[in-house]
Amino acid sequence: MDPHTEHLRISPARFQANFDALSKIGATDDGGVHRPALSETHLAARAWFRERIREIGIEPRVDGAGNHSAYLPCGPEDGPTLLIGSHLDSVPHGGRFDGALGVLAALEVLIVVKETGISLPINLEAIDFTDEEGTHFGLMGSSALAGNLSRSDLEHPRGGKAAFVEDLNRAGLTEDGLLNAARHKGSLAGFIEVHIEQGTRLIDANAEIGVVTSIIGIGSSILTFIGRSDHAGTTSMEDRLDASQGASAFILATRDILLEDFPQCVANVGQINLKPGVFNIVPAEAILGLEYRAPEAHTLHRLGQALIERARSEANRFGLRLEVEELGEYPPSPMNDAVRSAIADAADSLGLNHIPLASMAGHDAQSLAGLCPVGMIFVPSVDGASHSPREFTTWENCIHGANALLQTALRLALNNDQAG
Amino acid sequence: MDPHTEHLRISPARFQANFDALSKIGATDDGGVHRPALSETHLAARAWFRERIREIGIEPRVDGAGNHSAYLPCGPEDGPTLLIGSHLDSVPHGGRFDGALGVLAALEVLIVVKETGISLPINLEAIDFTDEEGTHFGLMGSSALAGNLSRSDLEHPRGGKAAFVEDLNRAGLTEDGLLNAARHKGSLAGFIEVHIEQGTRLIDANAEIGVVTSIIGIGSSILTFIGRSDHAGTTSMEDRLDASQGASAFILATRDILLEDFPQCVANVGQINLKPGVFNIVPAEAILGLEYRAPEAHTLHRLGQALIERARSEANRFGLRLEVEELGEYPPSPMNDAVRSAIADAADSLGLNHIPLASMAGHDAQSLAGLCPVGMIFVPSVDGASHSPREFTTWENCIHGANALLQTALRLALNNDQAG
Repeated sequence: MDPHTEHLRISPARFQANFDALSKIGATDDGGVHRPALSETHLAARAWFRERIREIGIEPRVDGAGNHSAYLPCGPEDGPTLLIGSHLDSVPHGGRFDGALGVLAALEVLIVVKETGISLPINLEAIDFTDEEGTHFGLMGSSALAGNLSRSDLEHPRGGKAAFVEDLNRAGLTEDGLLNAARHKGSLAGFIEVHIEQGTRLIDANAEIGVVTSIIGIGSSILTFIGRSDHAGTTSMEDRLDASQGASAFILATRDILLEDFPQCVANVGQINLKPGVFNIVPAEAILGLEYRAPEAHTLHRLGQALIERARSEANRFGLRLEVEELGEYPPSPMNDAVRSAIADAADSLGLNHIPLASMAGHDAQSLAGLCPVGMIFVPSVDGASHSPREFTTWENCIHGANALLQTALRLALNNDQAG
Repeated sequence: MDPHTEHLRISPARFQANFDALSKIGATDDGGVHRPALSETHLAARAWFRERIREIGIEPRVDGAGNHSAYLPCGPEDGPTLLIGSHLDSVPHGGRFDGALGVLAALEVLIVVKETGISLPINLEAIDFTDEEGTHFGLMGSSALAGNLSRSDLEHPRGGKAAFVEDLNRAGLTEDGLLNAARHKGSLAGFIEVHIEQGTRLIDANAEIGVVTSIIGIGSSILTFIGRSDHAGTTSMEDRLDASQGASAFILATRDILLEDFPQCVANVGQINLKPGVFNIVPAEAILGLEYRAPEAHTLHRLGQALIERARSEANRFGLRLEVEELGEYPPSPMNDAVRSAIADAADSLGLNHIPLASMAGHDAQSLAGLCPVGMIFVPSVDGASHSPREFTTWENCIHGANALLQTALRLALNNDQAG
């Protein structure tokens, strides 16, 4: 690699000043931020971001989905664009790092390339996607940009249609705009996102950089264990068909199945309802909300099957029936090999320990995986805390993440030239 | 025993005609009855009962609690009264046998004694207690008769104060009346109640008669297992403090504890709530509604302790905290030894198989246990079904129950003479 570009670094002082300024927008007393998508605080953060873009002499772009970006024509006119970025919205009462770090790292990379004045085989664009966290639709802006949204998708927003329409109006957006924000397949050279890990694997492995191998696939089901309601006094323990017994055995088994047979995966029973649900009647039904995640499609499917099979055998053991309502499986998104190699090379050149790891949460990168080569760079989360004011990454590791993004972007750009 | 009284039997034809007529009042399409206390159908059943009493030449008595009775002065004037009976109200959409069988068996016994014209050392009274099932207050009429009600007890009826007052008005009752319905301690020679078992122990033991040893005590608690809410994707299985794990282990253990160490007792977890209760967040809290029942006071207490201890150890095992809110223990009511012996002797003389057994449900008899010697006669419930239209006892066993009541009452009456 060109020794000139190999030694480029972001500006820690400017990066931190921007991070601190952004953290004040929607700041909460407990050290977090409250910037749900299209809320007043979120729109204020976006206005601030537009100002930062103008400050470097670039007119900010806003597409039909409200995605905000800074476009740097550092490559051939009408040549492909390397997209870098993340999102400025937060979960309600969330943390300062989730999303914001990736947008500011991308801005920093773009500023460095601009200030250096180098020519690259690609153009560069630092982007802030709309509503990654799903106030209305999870990954909304990146899905719109990838052309994955249809009109029927917009009918059932999480917070209800009225709130969605009101927020679109406040932000000056329209449904038609969302449906017409798709980019052409050949227009993007790739997408790279820096993000906090939201887990403890990097810290446990004493690594500064996580090279994301795939974004996890998610399956979910509603499992209903069905027994018989009986008088909880007069019905002996032997004679009961108690739905809570099968459900409890399954919940315990879930943990064992994951720990023993699916060490790279997770599962969660986050909801239980007993019916009729009173002290003195043996539960006739136990209704469980099950979610499971796996990094590869075949593992996700195998895990789903193993869990349902176990639920069935635990139901049988207690004389219960099992009904399964599958809510769907969202397949994993493998990251692009060339992007992964570029991230690993970049980390090596920066002298940073790195490990490969799957993302256990969803990210905008998965929306774009069908459109262009995508990759993600994770930085360590202290205590793994996330979606919480406790969210924290050391400033040193934030800088490492931004420099890894810079070096990865340069490597991919120069590889793009060799490939073209 | 006097060979004349030893050979007395109730009239199966009259008993069945009355049972069939009563079953039609509030009858439901599925073969059950719907006679919640003080509802129109319940008041109709009571009017019918008053007619049956008048038919035999007795003016029905109605006390301040609305308890209906037929008083037969077959003993010394102002002598003690042997009370026999049960209740005509039902749970909503209940069965034909629960309560009704005991009232009609008592009426039948009173008619037989009246028709025979024998003199006894006691007077006899067949009673129908108000609101045994607890539309407003469980065991209301029998508690009032036993002097166990206070004005503050009447402040929080199960169905709300407005519905209670409305129902009292409809039935021509008043709160003052309820509080002034207590009988004097020396006025009663005893109380005997025939009731369906509501379980399968008699059928399992091939017995026609259950000699109730005690009415079970009931304890209840709310147990809260407390862990930590975490992202259900990014938090590894090892790192979770998942409240559902401790709760599930406890629910499974409850069954084992009862089967292994407390074979005469039961316990039920009828409610579970997880918090925050969503698919993609590890449950921080699992809130359980626990009820447990035991036939003796020391067993009830020991069972409650064993369950809480186990909840604590299962919480510890999964790194959780446990909070316990004890909702109170209602002590068991042991039945009187002399009444138990009289029931066993009566069954022997009738050639009926009998076994001792605890009542796993509450009954009016427990209200009176502090006032006079009490006993209960159980008859077999097919499939143990109760509080359901499926409730069923063979007609043969209903007759056995009524004859056992007759022979028990005569034995107690004559013993009363020997004692006096």
